[in-house]
Amino acid sequence: MSREGETILERVGFRLQLKLATIEEYVLVHENVWPEMTAALSQAGWRNYSLFLDRTDGSLFGYFESSDAQASIEAMKGLEVNVRWQREMAHFFDGLNGRNPDDGFLTLENVFFLA
Amino acid sequence: MSREGETILERVGFRLQLKLATIEEYVLVHENVWPEMTAALSQAGWRNYSLFLDRTDGSLFGYFESSDAQASIEAMKGLEVNVRWQREMAHFFDGLNGRNPDDGFLTLENVFFLA
Repeated sequence: MSREGETILERVGFRLQLKLATIEEYVLVHENVWPEMTAALSQAGWRNYSLFLDRTDGSLFGYFESSDAQASIEAMKGLEVNVRWQREMAHFFDGLNGRNPDDGFLTLENVFFLA
Repeated sequence: MSREGETILERVGFRLQLKLATIEEYVLVHENVWPEMTAALSQAGWRNYSLFLDRTDGSLFGYFESSDAQASIEAMKGLEVNVRWQREMAHFFDGLNGRNPDDGFLTLENVFFLA
Protein backbone atom coordinates (compact mmCIF):
# COMPACT_ATOMS: atom_id res chain seq x y z
CA MET A 1 0.00 0.00 0.00
CA SER A 2 1.46 3.31 -1.04
CA ARG A 3 1.60 6.13 1.50
CA GLU A 4 1.80 8.72 -1.28
CA GLY A 5 -1.13 11.09 -0.94
CA GLU A 6 -2.65 8.95 1.80
CA THR A 7 -5.06 10.87 4.01
CA ILE A 8 -5.33 10.00 7.67
CA LEU A 9 -9.05 10.16 8.37
CA GLU A 10 -9.30 8.19 11.56
CA ARG A 11 -7.53 7.95 14.88
CA VAL A 12 -8.23 4.85 16.94
CA GLY A 13 -7.72 4.46 20.66
CA PHE A 14 -8.21 1.03 22.15
CA ARG A 15 -7.66 -0.70 25.44
CA LEU A 16 -6.63 -4.12 26.70
CA GLN A 17 -5.97 -5.51 30.18
CA LEU A 18 -2.61 -7.17 30.79
CA LYS A 19 -2.06 -9.71 33.53
CA LEU A 20 0.28 -8.07 36.03
CA ALA A 21 2.39 -11.21 36.40
CA THR A 22 3.42 -11.26 32.73
CA ILE A 23 3.98 -7.54 32.07
CA GLU A 24 7.77 -7.87 31.85
CA GLU A 25 7.51 -10.67 29.30
CA TYR A 26 4.97 -8.68 27.28
CA VAL A 27 7.31 -5.67 27.19
CA LEU A 28 10.24 -7.85 26.11
CA VAL A 29 8.22 -9.48 23.33
CA HIS A 30 7.31 -6.03 22.01
CA GLU A 31 10.94 -5.00 21.75
CA ASN A 32 11.22 -7.62 19.02
CA VAL A 33 7.91 -7.90 17.21
CA TRP A 34 8.28 -10.25 14.22
CA PRO A 35 9.27 -8.24 11.13
CA GLU A 36 6.58 -10.07 9.12
CA MET A 37 3.99 -8.87 11.67
CA THR A 38 5.03 -5.20 11.47
CA ALA A 39 5.14 -5.50 7.67
CA ALA A 40 1.59 -6.89 7.68
CA LEU A 41 0.36 -4.02 9.85
CA SER A 42 1.94 -1.48 7.53
CA GLN A 43 0.47 -3.25 4.52
CA ALA A 44 -2.95 -3.14 6.19
CA GLY A 45 -2.67 0.63 6.67
CA TRP A 46 -1.82 0.85 10.36
CA ARG A 47 0.08 4.15 10.78
CA ASN A 48 1.76 5.85 13.72
CA TYR A 49 0.88 2.89 15.95
CA SER A 50 1.86 3.07 19.61
CA LEU A 51 1.16 0.89 22.61
CA PHE A 52 1.28 2.53 26.04
CA LEU A 53 1.45 0.64 29.30
CA ASP A 54 0.21 1.62 32.74
CA ARG A 55 2.29 -0.56 35.05
CA THR A 56 0.19 0.33 38.08
CA ASP A 57 -2.70 -1.87 36.94
CA GLY A 58 -1.67 -3.44 33.61
CA SER A 59 -3.87 -1.27 31.43
CA LEU A 60 -2.61 -1.19 27.86
CA PHE A 61 -3.64 1.68 25.61
CA GLY A 62 -3.26 1.44 21.84
CA TYR A 63 -3.28 4.32 19.38
CA PHE A 64 -3.05 4.18 15.60
CA GLU A 65 -4.09 6.15 12.56
CA SER A 66 -5.53 4.93 9.29
CA SER A 67 -7.28 6.21 6.20
CA ASP A 68 -9.93 3.56 7.01
CA ALA A 69 -9.60 2.07 10.47
CA GLN A 70 -12.21 -0.67 10.12
CA ALA A 71 -10.64 -1.82 6.85
CA SER A 72 -7.20 -1.82 8.48
CA ILE A 73 -8.48 -3.95 11.36
CA GLU A 74 -10.32 -6.34 9.04
CA ALA A 75 -7.32 -6.65 6.71
CA MET A 76 -5.33 -8.21 9.55
CA LYS A 77 -7.93 -10.81 10.49
CA GLY A 78 -7.33 -13.34 7.78
CA LEU A 79 -3.55 -13.16 7.72
CA GLU A 80 -1.75 -16.26 8.88
CA VAL A 81 1.00 -14.22 10.56
CA ASN A 82 -1.60 -12.29 12.53
CA VAL A 83 -3.43 -15.42 13.62
CA ARG A 84 -0.12 -16.83 14.89
CA TRP A 85 0.80 -13.54 16.62
CA GLN A 86 -2.56 -13.07 18.32
CA ARG A 87 -2.50 -16.67 19.55
CA GLU A 88 0.91 -16.08 21.14
CA MET A 89 -0.27 -12.83 22.74
CA ALA A 90 -3.57 -14.10 24.14
CA HIS A 91 -2.13 -15.48 27.40
CA PHE A 92 -0.85 -12.02 28.40
CA PHE A 93 -4.36 -10.63 28.72
CA ASP A 94 -7.33 -10.77 31.03
CA GLY A 95 -10.93 -10.28 30.00
CA LEU A 96 -10.76 -11.69 26.49
CA ASN A 97 -13.21 -14.51 27.24
CA GLY A 98 -11.50 -16.84 24.79
CA ARG A 99 -11.14 -14.30 22.01
CA ASN A 100 -7.83 -13.25 20.56
CA PRO A 101 -6.58 -9.77 21.57
CA ASP A 102 -7.49 -8.26 18.21
CA ASP A 103 -11.09 -9.38 18.68
CA GLY A 104 -11.23 -8.52 22.35
CA PHE A 105 -9.93 -4.99 22.48
CA LEU A 106 -12.22 -2.20 23.56
CA THR A 107 -12.40 0.73 21.15
CA LEU A 108 -12.47 4.04 22.98
CA GLU A 109 -14.38 7.20 22.23
CA ASN A 110 -12.39 10.13 20.86
CA VAL A 111 -13.77 13.07 22.85
CA PHE A 112 -11.23 15.71 21.83
CA PHE A 113 -8.84 16.33 18.98
CA LEU A 114 -6.42 19.15 18.26
CA ALA A 115 -4.30 18.93 15.11
CA MET B 1 5.73 28.41 17.02
CA SER B 2 6.31 27.49 13.39
CA ARG B 3 5.57 23.96 12.26
CA GLU B 4 7.87 24.29 9.28
CA GLY B 5 10.51 21.63 9.50
CA GLU B 6 9.37 20.63 12.97
CA THR B 7 10.41 17.12 13.91
CA ILE B 8 8.16 15.01 16.08
CA LEU B 9 10.53 13.28 18.47
CA GLU B 10 8.21 12.24 21.23
CA ARG B 11 4.82 10.60 21.60
CA VAL B 12 3.18 10.94 24.98
CA GLY B 13 0.43 8.72 26.39
CA PHE B 14 -1.14 9.75 29.68
CA ARG B 15 -4.04 8.72 31.81
CA LEU B 16 -6.60 10.34 34.08
CA GLN B 17 -9.61 9.00 35.99
CA LEU B 18 -12.96 10.66 35.38
CA LYS B 19 -15.79 10.53 37.89
CA LEU B 20 -18.51 8.43 36.30
CA ALA B 21 -21.25 10.84 37.38
CA THR B 22 -19.83 13.75 35.38
CA ILE B 23 -18.72 12.00 32.19
CA GLU B 24 -21.49 13.52 30.07
CA GLU B 25 -20.62 17.02 31.21
CA TYR B 26 -16.92 16.39 30.55
CA VAL B 27 -17.68 15.24 27.00
CA LEU B 28 -19.86 18.29 26.35
CA VAL B 29 -17.21 20.68 27.65
CA HIS B 30 -14.69 19.10 25.26
CA GLU B 31 -16.89 19.74 22.27
CA ASN B 32 -16.27 23.42 22.89
CA VAL B 33 -12.82 23.87 24.38
CA TRP B 34 -12.02 27.57 24.66
CA PRO B 35 -10.28 28.77 21.48
CA GLU B 36 -7.64 30.53 23.60
CA MET B 37 -6.90 27.18 25.28
CA THR B 38 -6.43 25.27 22.01
CA ALA B 39 -4.34 28.18 20.70
CA ALA B 40 -2.13 27.98 23.79
CA LEU B 41 -1.64 24.24 23.36
CA SER B 42 -0.65 24.71 19.72
CA GLN B 43 1.69 27.54 20.70
CA ALA B 44 3.27 25.25 23.31
CA GLY B 45 3.93 22.57 20.69
CA TRP B 46 1.14 20.08 21.43
CA ARG B 47 0.49 18.27 18.13
CA ASN B 48 -2.00 15.60 17.06
CA TYR B 49 -3.57 15.68 20.51
CA SER B 50 -6.45 13.27 21.21
CA LEU B 51 -8.39 12.37 24.33
CA PHE B 52 -10.02 8.93 24.42
CA LEU B 53 -12.70 7.92 26.89
CA ASP B 54 -13.53 4.49 28.26
CA ARG B 55 -17.13 4.91 29.42
CA THR B 56 -17.11 1.56 31.22
CA ASP B 57 -14.96 2.91 34.06
CA GLY B 58 -14.22 6.56 33.29
CA SER B 59 -10.61 6.02 32.24
CA LEU B 60 -9.38 8.86 30.06
CA PHE B 61 -6.35 8.36 27.83
CA GLY B 62 -4.48 11.24 26.29
CA TYR B 63 -2.13 11.09 23.32
CA PHE B 64 -0.06 13.88 21.85
CA GLU B 65 3.12 14.44 19.92
CA SER B 66 5.77 17.08 20.37
CA SER B 67 9.30 17.90 19.35
CA ASP B 68 9.99 18.23 23.11
CA ALA B 69 7.20 16.86 25.29
CA GLN B 70 8.52 18.08 28.64
CA ALA B 71 8.97 21.59 27.24
CA SER B 72 5.43 21.49 25.81
CA ILE B 73 4.01 20.45 29.19
CA GLU B 74 6.04 23.05 31.07
CA ALA B 75 5.12 25.80 28.60
CA MET B 76 1.47 25.42 29.58
CA LYS B 77 2.04 25.63 33.35
CA GLY B 78 2.47 29.36 33.72
CA LEU B 79 -0.25 30.43 31.30
CA GLU B 80 -3.22 32.17 32.85
CA VAL B 81 -5.64 30.50 30.41
CA ASN B 82 -4.31 27.07 31.37
CA VAL B 83 -4.56 27.77 35.09
CA ARG B 84 -8.21 28.78 34.59
CA TRP B 85 -8.93 25.74 32.38
CA GLN B 86 -7.33 23.22 34.71
CA ARG B 87 -9.18 24.70 37.67
CA GLU B 88 -12.50 24.24 35.84
CA MET B 89 -11.58 20.65 34.86
CA ALA B 90 -10.37 19.48 38.28
CA HIS B 91 -13.81 18.53 39.63
CA PHE B 92 -14.30 15.98 36.82
CA PHE B 93 -11.46 13.80 38.07
CA ASP B 94 -10.70 11.38 40.85
CA GLY B 95 -7.28 10.70 42.27
CA LEU B 96 -5.74 14.14 41.81
CA ASN B 97 -5.23 14.71 45.55
CA GLY B 98 -5.72 18.44 45.20
CA ARG B 99 -3.54 18.83 42.13
CA ASN B 100 -4.81 20.19 38.84
CA PRO B 101 -5.28 17.62 36.05
CA ASP B 102 -2.12 18.72 34.24
CA ASP B 103 -0.09 18.03 37.37
CA GLY B 104 -1.91 14.84 38.26
CA PHE B 105 -1.89 12.86 35.06
CA LEU B 106 0.01 9.62 34.87
CA THR B 107 2.48 9.36 32.01
CA LEU B 108 2.44 5.92 30.41
CA GLU B 109 5.28 3.86 29.03
CA ASN B 110 5.53 3.54 25.26
CA VAL B 111 6.24 -0.17 24.79
CA PHE B 112 5.77 -0.39 21.01
CA PHE B 113 5.91 1.95 18.05
CA LEU B 114 5.41 1.38 14.34
CA ALA B 115 5.67 4.38 12.02
